[in-house]
Amino acid sequence: MEYAPERPAGHGGSRQTGKEDYIMSIDVNEIIRQVTDEVCPKQEGAPTVAEETGFTPAGMAKYIDHTLLKPEATVEDIRKVCDEAKALKVASVCVNPSYIKFVAEQLAGSGVTPCCVIGFPLGATTPEAKAFEASNAASNGAREVDMVMNIGAAKSGDWRLVKRDIESVVSAVRGRALVKVIIECCLLTDEEKVKACTMAKLAGADFVKTSTGFSTGGAKAEDVALMRQTVGTDMGVKASGGVRSYADAVTMIKAGANRIGASSGKKICSGGDNGGEGAGLY
Amino acid sequence: MEYAPERPAGHGGSRQTGKEDYIMSIDVNEIIRQVTDEVCPKQEGAPTVAEETGFTPAGMAKYIDHTLLKPEATVEDIRKVCDEAKALKVASVCVNPSYIKFVAEQLAGSGVTPCCVIGFPLGATTPEAKAFEASNAASNGAREVDMVMNIGAAKSGDWRLVKRDIESVVSAVRGRALVKVIIECCLLTDEEKVKACTMAKLAGADFVKTSTGFSTGGAKAEDVALMRQTVGTDMGVKASGGVRSYADAVTMIKAGANRIGASSGKKICSGGDNGGEGAGLY
Repeated sequence: MEYAPERPAGHGGSRQTGKEDYIMSIDVNEIIRQVTDEVCPKQEGAPTVAEETGFTPAGMAKYIDHTLLKPEATVEDIRKVCDEAKALKVASVCVNPSYIKFVAEQLAGSGVTPCCVIGFPLGATTPEAKAFEASNAASNGAREVDMVMNIGAAKSGDWRLVKRDIESVVSAVRGRALVKVIIECCLLTDEEKVKACTMAKLAGADFVKTSTGFSTGGAKAEDVALMRQTVGTDMGVKASGGVRSYADAVTMIKAGANRIGASSGKKICSGGDNGGEGAGLY
Repeated sequence: MEYAPERPAGHGGSRQTGKEDYIMSIDVNEIIRQVTDEVCPKQEGAPTVAEETGFTPAGMAKYIDHTLLKPEATVEDIRKVCDEAKALKVASVCVNPSYIKFVAEQLAGSGVTPCCVIGFPLGATTPEAKAFEASNAASNGAREVDMVMNIGAAKSGDWRLVKRDIESVVSAVRGRALVKVIIECCLLTDEEKVKACTMAKLAGADFVKTSTGFSTGGAKAEDVALMRQTVGTDMGVKASGGVRSYADAVTMIKAGANRIGASSGKKICSGGDNGGEGAGLY
């Protein structure tokens, strides 16, 4: 299976409408500048942002990472998620690494991308272990990996380690899989969120992602907007954790997300909680 | 630092007093026989159990794995736990892999063992990734590793994978670190608990452990008794998750535990909730 390095769907553009609704109490650009100088003094500013196409509600499925991460999920549970994903034509199926080989086999030829999490959900393994785990996942068929950043390092102010940790995964799967960096917003201050997103961008990751869904809180529109403001439009922003309805998904996309992680993909793609089951997009 | 393969303290013996309080509704020996035949048909029964010394309340600290696993823990939080551990003279300090090198440095020469978790808390990484993570941890100074078994494999009935997963870690750290296998009791039926403990024993692990503390429930005395009944007295049983007081710890030890995982080691060792702070053992 060949890796197709196409840009994520609906990247940037009109999704940033609504960003102005979220008043920032911090100077994002100043924090970005400070933390960039700290870890990477020779960095010559951010890359040029690309122009992209806008979001349309009819394309909701392509935003969805159809997700099952419960440790007790059986192989039959995973098979069911893959079948749903193929029927819905979502972006990816996101599972734990133990199931990625099975998922890649199930999704072969379907156009749905096999995705798995790395260092999940605590983000507290070493850069070496995350790199091995990610490379192993790519060898097993993962074409996207959602890694959890080293949250403890961030809370300790060790942004060099945060960056090196992400770089180790980016390097391990280069040319084989996209890298999303879960920053676990609910455990971070706004300043730390900006710094974390900056590290993800400097390290060459493809996406930043709000939440694991296993901590004290999930995706919030204001976090999505802050993350989008920080990374610009040449990276993806994934909203995950507690996105359970079509209305939730639309809110996140309007705030700046271009990918949605959800275990309720079927409900979301049917317009669930916003027109009733089956009254939605398809 | 040399690995001393001594048996865990207070192993077996009089701790099994009270086991009879827990009435088993399943035929443990029959389940052990079935699952052993399934994954290991040439296995010649369980090893002979060793006679060991009993538990005394005055030695509570040596049962404690002083634990800090929150992803947001900072290096200063970890340093504090190490300082407490050395003062209390607990068995080990148990942390995430990202901090094990720092912990090993802090504990050098103290007699307190550096311990870290592997595949934590979901247990859903591959055998290869767990082996790498465990070897990396041992190279960074871990002398005990607490791995989470592949819970999804167990729930799928794939006991061969459960065993191979544990063997991969045992093999990776052989001669360098003890291996504890977290079976996550709250997600298993009693039959699955017996099968999981049997796999840990067949795979050559040193301990079975009740819980991660990150799922839907923690240590229960009846689970500890069932686990002890399953593994006999030549393996350790660690009770963890929700053990917060001296009384809790005593209950677990009476049920068959010979190690306690707790973030409240300081309170437990002072007799907390059973005579008041400072009115306890020390």
